[in-house]
Amino acid sequence: MIKVGVVGATGYTGVELLRILSQHPEAEIKAVTSRSEEGMLVSDMFPNLRKNLDLKFTTPEHANLEDCDVVFFATPHGVAMSQAASLLKAGVKIIDLAADFRLQDTDAFKKWYQQDHVCPDILKNESVYGLVEKNRERIKQKKVIGNPGCYPTTVILGLMPLLEQSWIETQGIIADCKSGVSGAGRKASVGTLLAEASDNFKAYAVSGHRHHPEIVEQLNEIAGESVGLTFIPHLVPMIRGMFSTLYVRLKAGHTLEEVHQMYQQRYQHETFIDVLPLGALPETRWVRASNMLRIGMYIAPHDPQQLILLVVQDNLLKGAAGQAVQNMNVMFGLKEDTGLGQMAILP
Amino acid sequence: MIKVGVVGATGYTGVELLRILSQHPEAEIKAVTSRSEEGMLVSDMFPNLRKNLDLKFTTPEHANLEDCDVVFFATPHGVAMSQAASLLKAGVKIIDLAADFRLQDTDAFKKWYQQDHVCPDILKNESVYGLVEKNRERIKQKKVIGNPGCYPTTVILGLMPLLEQSWIETQGIIADCKSGVSGAGRKASVGTLLAEASDNFKAYAVSGHRHHPEIVEQLNEIAGESVGLTFIPHLVPMIRGMFSTLYVRLKAGHTLEEVHQMYQQRYQHETFIDVLPLGALPETRWVRASNMLRIGMYIAPHDPQQLILLVVQDNLLKGAAGQAVQNMNVMFGLKEDTGLGQMAILP
Amino acid sequence: MIKVGVVGATGYTGVELLRILSQHPEAEIKAVTSRSEEGMLVSDMFPNLRKNLDLKFTTPEHANLEDCDVVFFATPHGVAMSQAASLLKAGVKIIDLAADFRLQDTDAFKKWYQQDHVCPDILKNESVYGLVEKNRERIKQKKVIGNPGCYPTTVILGLMPLLEQSWIETQGIIADCKSGVSGAGRKASVGTLLAEASDNFKAYAVSGHRHHPEIVEQLNEIAGESVGLTFIPHLVPMIRGMFSTLYVRLKAGHTLEEVHQMYQQRYQHETFIDVLPLGALPETRWVRASNMLRIGMYIAPHDPQQLILLVVQDNLLKGAAGQAVQNMNVMFGLKEDTGLGQMAILP
Amino acid sequence: MIKVGVVGATGYTGVELLRILSQHPEAEIKAVTSRSEEGMLVSDMFPNLRKNLDLKFTTPEHANLEDCDVVFFATPHGVAMSQAASLLKAGVKIIDLAADFRLQDTDAFKKWYQQDHVCPDILKNESVYGLVEKNRERIKQKKVIGNPGCYPTTVILGLMPLLEQSWIETQGIIADCKSGVSGAGRKASVGTLLAEASDNFKAYAVSGHRHHPEIVEQLNEIAGESVGLTFIPHLVPMIRGMFSTLYVRLKAGHTLEEVHQMYQQRYQHETFIDVLPLGALPETRWVRASNMLRIGMYIAPHDPQQLILLVVQDNLLKGAAGQAVQNMNVMFGLKEDTGLGQMAILP
Repeated sequence: MIKVGVVGATGYTGVELLRILSQHPEAEIKAVTSRSEEGMLVSDMFPNLRKNLDLKFTTPEHANLEDCDVVFFATPHGVAMSQAASLLKAGVKIIDLAADFRLQDTDAFKKWYQQDHVCPDILKNESVYGLVEKNRERIKQKKVIGNPGCYPTTVILGLMPLLEQSWIETQGIIADCKSGVSGAGRKASVGTLLAEASDNFKAYAVSGHRHHPEIVEQLNEIAGESVGLTFIPHLVPMIRGMFSTLYVRLKAGHTLEEVHQMYQQRYQHETFIDVLPLGALPETRWVRASNMLRIGMYIAPHDPQQLILLVVQDNLLKGAAGQAVQNMNVMFGLKEDTGLGQMAILP
Repeated sequence: MIKVGVVGATGYTGVELLRILSQHPEAEIKAVTSRSEEGMLVSDMFPNLRKNLDLKFTTPEHANLEDCDVVFFATPHGVAMSQAASLLKAGVKIIDLAADFRLQDTDAFKKWYQQDHVCPDILKNESVYGLVEKNRERIKQKKVIGNPGCYPTTVILGLMPLLEQSWIETQGIIADCKSGVSGAGRKASVGTLLAEASDNFKAYAVSGHRHHPEIVEQLNEIAGESVGLTFIPHLVPMIRGMFSTLYVRLKAGHTLEEVHQMYQQRYQHETFIDVLPLGALPETRWVRASNMLRIGMYIAPHDPQQLILLVVQDNLLKGAAGQAVQNMNVMFGLKEDTGLGQMAILP
Repeated sequence: MIKVGVVGATGYTGVELLRILSQHPEAEIKAVTSRSEEGMLVSDMFPNLRKNLDLKFTTPEHANLEDCDVVFFATPHGVAMSQAASLLKAGVKIIDLAADFRLQDTDAFKKWYQQDHVCPDILKNESVYGLVEKNRERIKQKKVIGNPGCYPTTVILGLMPLLEQSWIETQGIIADCKSGVSGAGRKASVGTLLAEASDNFKAYAVSGHRHHPEIVEQLNEIAGESVGLTFIPHLVPMIRGMFSTLYVRLKAGHTLEEVHQMYQQRYQHETFIDVLPLGALPETRWVRASNMLRIGMYIAPHDPQQLILLVVQDNLLKGAAGQAVQNMNVMFGLKEDTGLGQMAILP
Repeated sequence: MIKVGVVGATGYTGVELLRILSQHPEAEIKAVTSRSEEGMLVSDMFPNLRKNLDLKFTTPEHANLEDCDVVFFATPHGVAMSQAASLLKAGVKIIDLAADFRLQDTDAFKKWYQQDHVCPDILKNESVYGLVEKNRERIKQKKVIGNPGCYPTTVILGLMPLLEQSWIETQGIIADCKSGVSGAGRKASVGTLLAEASDNFKAYAVSGHRHHPEIVEQLNEIAGESVGLTFIPHLVPMIRGMFSTLYVRLKAGHTLEEVHQMYQQRYQHETFIDVLPLGALPETRWVRASNMLRIGMYIAPHDPQQLILLVVQDNLLKGAAGQAVQNMNVMFGLKEDTGLGQMAILP
């Protein structure tokens, strides 16, 4: 059994982690830390876990995280990197669900997260961007995982095959993305009250969203050149789910059928990627509460080079906690879907 | 034109007041106060008002409320009573949307609102509970209105005719009430986030809700005796709307048809009460964004004395801001539906 | 492996059955029948099952249901009873998610379902009402299960301990129940369109709901006398979830603490019933997508004999497909939570 | 008073028309026709109108539409054109909320609506596309109005000033549009059930939507050249509201500030268009239940020629019934906002 610690599990990605890990046949949760909630039953905060998880929040000091095999950080940005060195020294692997190990560009990190990176050596030498379908082999060898952001997961996996093949123009790519409200987290705020966000639709963070540099860094690596991306996030009045509409220009000579076949081939061994048949368009409820990401595609009716990709995932699973456990499975040599087999809930 | 001041219009009842009053043909908004938002355009906070209301928040000090004919308080409990004496002295009428003038029982006020009443004389001699359909004549003569709470409006108007006629048992009355989330107000909180309150249903405040003494005080006055009421509020995943299911025991000898006819007669001249035909059951969307309250009724299939009344209203209109303007209209001798004629929005 | 057939899996209880059964470690789905959808991939109708269930709909004629160990009927009322005799003859067990084997009173069945019962002998001798927590031993011995309706599951399990102990008045019980919209099924209708049912709350079927005789028949059996129940269903703008507020009169001499302790004891070995600590009130999201039913309770603040029980479940799981699989597990001697361990999804 | 007839008011645009017209100070509803609902009270179908509209549905034969001044058609495509000649002969003006008079290109009409146009002469000589802000003067002179589709209203008004000025590339324009579910109409269907469409997001009609030729025909006229547009509609889990994200390439030399100033100038006298200040982004709830359309704009952070326009409206008001009444007001020389002054409902 893998001994697991979870730091900071009082948010939505935290409770999802606990739900998955407490049913994971190869993992055992040893400690759940929260400084503010010390002594509270985790299931008093998240009653969906009642009768299944009988643990209390402890302080980090009492958690003995050094005895774990792996520690997940479901914390604000900056926490994981502050504890990385000591945990690594104790032989503990790290999976950070925040942004500390997502960006190799530490200047960009400082700009978007308003803090200096405190362990650039670990970032450079020990960590890897935890997008399994892109970096599986490196993940097996590294000790620190920067678990991808939710938007980046959909945009990168949606575009990767085309960029690998150099079949699209790398400038002028548009990602019109839509997210459920749980992406804003479990914190009191007026803007995401039901009375404000329900029966409403809006864009946000248009002057710049911190997932932009993360997406571009990965796309650049895939393309081997600098990619030009416009990325607009919108808020959908639903709890979970993410939908990305990706507009790209196909280079002359490629057809939709070729693209579709190439995607099927590229992702044929991926457990958590479903390339839909031509003509099928994904809906977010087709992946609700599952770790699956589904991709549909078509050509604009009046413009044969205008390719549109539609990508859906559950932002809390494949976009966060599910992908984190997928990373753990890869790191520890388990079958990749161990503990992650749950199918989407419909309706 | 009636000169109107609005104190504290940064919540949901506040913005509804502003929306109604800015279209009211006989009212002119002279001042909107907010200490924290001084200088801000009201329509920057509530952009639905853009192009219709061109006013800034001012401090109470600069608002010259003494020059108004009437001042609405859309503030926390305790604010209106602290300013009542000086406004009355200046000849200004007061409509309080909070609880300061709802309860004649000042001990109950202290218990439920954790403060002493600072002007019991005004409460007793100058104020009236602003339920127009019950207290219309007194409202014409008084200077201070305690605008009813949302739950009490549905329960009292739902039961009043039966209690006036002494046709029901006065003990064991059950009010199973359901409210949209806007009733919780426009303040940051985890419990009413879309991600928490959407796709969910729950009861709350079961150990005691402060609308209970308000309802009972009015029912006792109507019945001329002490009424026994169990009142359970529930939260519905919708923005607006209130639905009360009222269970009462009919005294022997009365039929549903009689009760229905008596309600039609009692409320026949009421602009804002709609007694539905027998067989019709109200839905909250039938009153969405209107000042109407609709009542349906029937007898339990297996128990001829078990009468059930179903009452719906928009909690922000007839349950708050609409009723407040209805009170203003009565106080100033206007036609009761002036500025309140807007029909419900469907779908 | 248990060989399973599913008849009529084109509705919401059907897709839930398929989702659960396709992940059940001891069951194998041999056939899914639908006359109208013959030849269609099940996952083309329910894409949440893609990459997990690779089966096509077949006609009943080609399904060889006689070779199954058990057949689930997720069909309209009347289908299961028409096939019961021949399946039983072939040694196949039956679990009917419709009403054919819920009511022992065939007159009530005819009245509420507008058809004669075609196999009253099987109903009387071979079938049992599949409420495991009430009838576990009989379920082990019978070949035909009438899987309970959604409302009855909450009301009966909510009241059973009190009626077993004769601690409450058996007349004047009120069940004010609220259901998510999936309870209305997956069929085109105006009333349950999002544009009609969203941001809305209403009661329905007040002149009589067919779950009423089902509930009363079971309560009578438990109480050993005739129980008087008023049952009012309401529609909540959410997909899944059921919430029942039960108002009962405690007989003198019993306290809330006693009642609570008695419930804990009565249900202590039940995997799928969670008696909440005093002070905790259930929410439907605490059981979303799980087979759990949770119960809270308290006394009305102003009336020490007025006990209120709050019961929640997922109407498609414990209220339908989950309970059906729980019945299968009991019938085949499996651990009761086999394939049903999935925890509730929050948020 | 303008004598008004409404043909086919059993859908959502119909009930909105009735709500607006029954409160319109210069209009009187003389007849509401529905063949299927003859004799039914309109308010029995739409109880939000109770106590305000006391009319029954009549058959077209008994409606004496020839005595009206104007007839609105809230009918399926094809009805208005079949009655246009006789009504015009009787001197009656026509406002069609369906597509019969939207497209001058009758081949495109036949392709997208599967029927021949039966009165191409009236289409060409007597009708005009009823987008007031574009065609106001022509609307004053014509007798037949093709009331614009919902998507076209947002896309055309969003792009018009830029195309008039030739400030953008006319090829490669992308309109990523999102609509509330009421746009699908009030008809029974599985896809728009609350249990299917709630907590979900999807694209639809990607192989071609019939609003595409309508938009392009208008944009071509404005631009004086052939415009290349990719248009993708999506479905948002909300009742009302439409949000269009428009991606255009600014020609070199133009700044955001210039564009913004130009929009403010172009629309400065428009009652129902609100150009938001730079930095403000519209939300659909800012126009809920009002006839207002609001526009925000900004430049992509990493691409100074990539201009994004965000446009919101209520699809049933400015996108349908409100715009229809706006057209009536213009045709009859009334102040344009007569009967349309209602402000947006928030929350």
